[in-house]
Amino acid sequence: MSNNNALNRLNLLKDHISRPTGSIDLEKERSNASFNVEHMNWLFCGSKESAKALSDAYQMIQRDPDLYIPGGHSFDMTQPQQRELVQRQALRFQRVRKTLKDPLLYKALELAMCIYSETFSMKTYVHNTLFRQSIEFFGTKEQQDEWMDDVLNWRIIGSYAMTELGHSSFIRGLETTATYDRVRDEFIINTPTLTATKWWIGMAGQTATHTVAICQTIIDSKSYGIDWFIVPLRDRKTGQLLPGVTAGDIGAKYGRNGLDSGWIQFSNVRIPRKNMLMKWSKVTEDGNYISPQNPAIAYTTLIGERLTVLAGTQNALGRALTVACRYGCVRRQGVNNLQIMDYQTHYVKLVPCVASIYVINIVDRNIKSRWEESTKLIQTNQSEFLKIVTDIHATSSGLKGTITWWGSEMFERCRRSLGGHAYSSYNAIGPAIGDWGVNTTGGGDNSVLLQQTARYLMNSYKEMIQGKQLSGSVEYFNNIKQFSKINKSDLLNEKQLYDMKYNLDMYTWLVKQKEDSSITWNNNQISLIRLSELHIFRYCLSEYIQGISKYRNSIPEFQNLCPILTKLGQLWSIHLIYESLNEFLEEGYFGKEQAIIVRNAYFGMCKELRKEIIPLVDAWGYPDFILQAPLGKFDGDVYKGISLDLSPVVTVTRVLSNS
Amino acid sequence: MSNNNALNRLNLLKDHISRPTGSIDLEKERSNASFNVEHMNWLFCGSKESAKALSDAYQMIQRDPDLYIPGGHSFDMTQPQQRELVQRQALRFQRVRKTLKDPLLYKALELAMCIYSETFSMKTYVHNTLFRQSIEFFGTKEQQDEWMDDVLNWRIIGSYAMTELGHSSFIRGLETTATYDRVRDEFIINTPTLTATKWWIGMAGQTATHTVAICQTIIDSKSYGIDWFIVPLRDRKTGQLLPGVTAGDIGAKYGRNGLDSGWIQFSNVRIPRKNMLMKWSKVTEDGNYISPQNPAIAYTTLIGERLTVLAGTQNALGRALTVACRYGCVRRQGVNNLQIMDYQTHYVKLVPCVASIYVINIVDRNIKSRWEESTKLIQTNQSEFLKIVTDIHATSSGLKGTITWWGSEMFERCRRSLGGHAYSSYNAIGPAIGDWGVNTTGGGDNSVLLQQTARYLMNSYKEMIQGKQLSGSVEYFNNIKQFSKINKSDLLNEKQLYDMKYNLDMYTWLVKQKEDSSITWNNNQISLIRLSELHIFRYCLSEYIQGISKYRNSIPEFQNLCPILTKLGQLWSIHLIYESLNEFLEEGYFGKEQAIIVRNAYFGMCKELRKEIIPLVDAWGYPDFILQAPLGKFDGDVYKGISLDLSPVVTVTRVLSNS
Repeated sequence: MSNNNALNRLNLLKDHISRPTGSIDLEKERSNASFNVEHMNWLFCGSKESAKALSDAYQMIQRDPDLYIPGGHSFDMTQPQQRELVQRQALRFQRVRKTLKDPLLYKALELAMCIYSETFSMKTYVHNTLFRQSIEFFGTKEQQDEWMDDVLNWRIIGSYAMTELGHSSFIRGLETTATYDRVRDEFIINTPTLTATKWWIGMAGQTATHTVAICQTIIDSKSYGIDWFIVPLRDRKTGQLLPGVTAGDIGAKYGRNGLDSGWIQFSNVRIPRKNMLMKWSKVTEDGNYISPQNPAIAYTTLIGERLTVLAGTQNALGRALTVACRYGCVRRQGVNNLQIMDYQTHYVKLVPCVASIYVINIVDRNIKSRWEESTKLIQTNQSEFLKIVTDIHATSSGLKGTITWWGSEMFERCRRSLGGHAYSSYNAIGPAIGDWGVNTTGGGDNSVLLQQTARYLMNSYKEMIQGKQLSGSVEYFNNIKQFSKINKSDLLNEKQLYDMKYNLDMYTWLVKQKEDSSITWNNNQISLIRLSELHIFRYCLSEYIQGISKYRNSIPEFQNLCPILTKLGQLWSIHLIYESLNEFLEEGYFGKEQAIIVRNAYFGMCKELRKEIIPLVDAWGYPDFILQAPLGKFDGDVYKGISLDLSPVVTVTRVLSNS
Repeated sequence: MSNNNALNRLNLLKDHISRPTGSIDLEKERSNASFNVEHMNWLFCGSKESAKALSDAYQMIQRDPDLYIPGGHSFDMTQPQQRELVQRQALRFQRVRKTLKDPLLYKALELAMCIYSETFSMKTYVHNTLFRQSIEFFGTKEQQDEWMDDVLNWRIIGSYAMTELGHSSFIRGLETTATYDRVRDEFIINTPTLTATKWWIGMAGQTATHTVAICQTIIDSKSYGIDWFIVPLRDRKTGQLLPGVTAGDIGAKYGRNGLDSGWIQFSNVRIPRKNMLMKWSKVTEDGNYISPQNPAIAYTTLIGERLTVLAGTQNALGRALTVACRYGCVRRQGVNNLQIMDYQTHYVKLVPCVASIYVINIVDRNIKSRWEESTKLIQTNQSEFLKIVTDIHATSSGLKGTITWWGSEMFERCRRSLGGHAYSSYNAIGPAIGDWGVNTTGGGDNSVLLQQTARYLMNSYKEMIQGKQLSGSVEYFNNIKQFSKINKSDLLNEKQLYDMKYNLDMYTWLVKQKEDSSITWNNNQISLIRLSELHIFRYCLSEYIQGISKYRNSIPEFQNLCPILTKLGQLWSIHLIYESLNEFLEEGYFGKEQAIIVRNAYFGMCKELRKEIIPLVDAWGYPDFILQAPLGKFDGDVYKGISLDLSPVVTVTRVLSNS
């Protein structure tokens, strides 16, 4: 090191000891909290105990060399290295979980690993949920007895073969066939065309030993619809593909490259008849097909899958927002050297996102417990289950579509708020956005899902008009006629907008308008999708209002959080009105004065909550190693977290030899 | 291969010979063209000759093993492999260009390479444009004589050191210093803090031998503002860093990983006084600082940089839209087995994007020739140049902000339209979106740029009110008062909206409203940004209308294209009105009836142009190897282009040993 260099380094050091840094900024921001951040973390995690368990789980990961990601991130690894990493994590996780006596800690460790690694999350999800639940939901008692012990102990690795190269959302159009051979009491599973190739099948690329495949059931050349079949793919010991099974990896993806997403072609693979999952539909030995009571039952595993995006949104966006908000309060720019978070363009974009994460948190907890209750009915009261499933299916589709699109929007806001640094992979936003794609176009295309929800809404609405009493997510339709009399809003001042129920009513009015116009304006897909969005956003607001009222009668720690939770809900409800201004204006419900009132209330509320934005993201409790981004460091000393690696001289001499 | 497998393969083959495929679909789509696709390609490329040259250039690349990307894409390569690839391409390109006698072909080859590889584009751009232009724009005649020959012949490799770790858009806040040492007639370049580290400097990581660095000029402890200095970084022969220079790579990025984006710290590096670029500002031997006439001159290289996004948008989005539109016409889904492009949700999203590429093409050609004319004035008529530069600076900032955000929106529409396949890197959309980030947050943050434009607009507007005659992009302000009288639109039927000038006037009315309300509602950043967007979209429409009128008096081949160009412009102009419906409604300019008229016209026009969507994207002329996506294959046989690789058995046995 030359003299000059040494001097410069010394200057840098001196400079950083003496001058105010982001740490001071964040300290000030934290002193603005009007609420107890730790208690808010309990609430966000569900309880004090869950929060403690999650925190312990994070620590376990950070200290465990097999769970921790070397170097803190995976995008500098090759694909095989990423595969090894995730496989090692999965393996280690199975070992560790057996040692854990506290079920809360086990659950927390699984959650923490899923937050830490999207790939790990997907891998365990495909086996533990999609594959396992298929057997639980669609399998008979005997089938469960036969398979579940191997599944739960990972003695086999399961995948979920639904999508095909040429088919996804329109499931009835899938081409793979299961043809019954009465003579040998077997099904013959076959891929008749290239487009019938099973595609995007998690773990089919390298690791799955089995799959549940959805196929067209054919008996005596007649097709009876789609059913689920357990098909072995690989030898359990050697991992070699079984005869008739051709499978491979689909290669580079825009996220989750640690997961061996694959393709499968079946060349007349024979399986015993009893490998057809027969709780709902059946094929008898002599080839009689017994139809299920409700063919939609075949999609029930998808409900759970769709609901997982609610947790996924909190975790992926929670992390991105933590980084964006901390950086926004640390970065100073412009003539007055303001924190960039103090610019209107900045906080008006980010604050509503932070509020929405709190809303989604409560919606998630409510609907997930409702769904868990419902699935118990599968074993006890199937007709009751079938009644509930239609409503929850429509709601899950709508939530998946609406919330993941809102997630894309939030990601883009976070990305832009990082400025030029967003382009560096080390700030975690680019990789997270790439990964997010799987949620908007995977697991059911959002446009298609929202049209499904719209069909359900239109049918329910017509039933209501015909006098039927509705329940579930559309229960509010029963009283929606009262809004017919209203043509204009009575909004006169901002104060009215601080009443969430007032805003809920305005929004309900808008849903009704959209229902009415969708009936007259038939087959307008764009309008139908918007109807679903409005209904789902209204549903979220309604659930959130109920959620707060529960906390008002809860433990004192949660009661004390109600003022800030109310503010967040107020902002979110005004956000919904603000985002629909054009629709309110078009219907003449609002005039210009009202639009201005809404806008002022919105900007004002954003400014008000901007003061607590750091405590609000802190409360989510993501440790730095989970954030994986120096710009989001808890201590605010963001630039020191950026590594200044020296790079080798590689190619410069080659270019110059050109001259 | 087992018997079963062979049979299955045979079935697949049979199936694909006999059954209708995407090829038939695209053939039908192509037969819908109302215009000559080849002539449209000439127009899009600027002339018949340019189109021919570009087509030849594509062929040269495809046949040249050093220019062609092995395997067709770079995301499966490691970072060092990507670096080698791009360096090899740059090297080879320099050799090939010397053999080309036709300047049109040389220009076409450079363009084709830039379309083919964003990294190549950035690499050559940093040296050939940013570095070179800095010397041309800011250097004296003597300085140009000293440096330009080495620059043009790549005997040195230049970089452009503006951004710092802690500073970007607010350039006056940059920290790097150039302190004049009168005794030795030298400047001392220094990085005083960590945040002053030059950051995001293309080619600083491994390859640049020189940089132009923007620094605070300090003489006798007094700071005089910012100037440009040529600083050697590396030894020309060995590539080793020079004393006092510390530099390295900033590591993984979300695109352009073949480019060695780097960081630089200067530890009191001494350069001769004459390395300060002194055309505008000067430091004399005895330490007198002579200020430039217009300090904004220091940013003029940025104007050219900002305008490059217009070409970048056409190429990046042109490719993505080609893939999305072809796939949309080939993919069939749903009960009626419709082409998904026939769904309203699909074509209403994509058709306006296609139209906008044609608009941007004409805007790009106009403003680039205006800028090229202007830069000639630097050497001949500096005061005239300074007059023009303010307007073109504001316009370039506004275009960069507005069009690249619109680009993000278009990308997201393309991504969603590919459904689940969007998540595969091989369909090129994920990598392209990641790469696009550099355009929205790099090269000046869009929010900041649009506020710059807004300030210019507000000042110009005030000058107009005070009676000054304006020219350039704000010339229309001179007559904008005529709109004061109008409160309500006279829109009564859809037909009126097919007059682009009618729509231009409506939009001008809206710009005026926004100007007026921005004056009364001071410091509202969100409103100011919207003002800039409105102004720029209006500018684009106005330029497009003028562009078409030129083609009406052009060669017969272009005259014949005017009907389709007019349709595209009609759609684009209605698109602008449609996207501003809420603003028109809020001002009471539109009532509900008018909103419905606009919506019907918009959806109707989208449906009308959907018929020609394939000819319209074909006319851009991107060959399959440039598209790098099987789903966008010209022949429509998309699924056959997807590779079904078999993957090795890697890790399955390790997991199973766990049980």
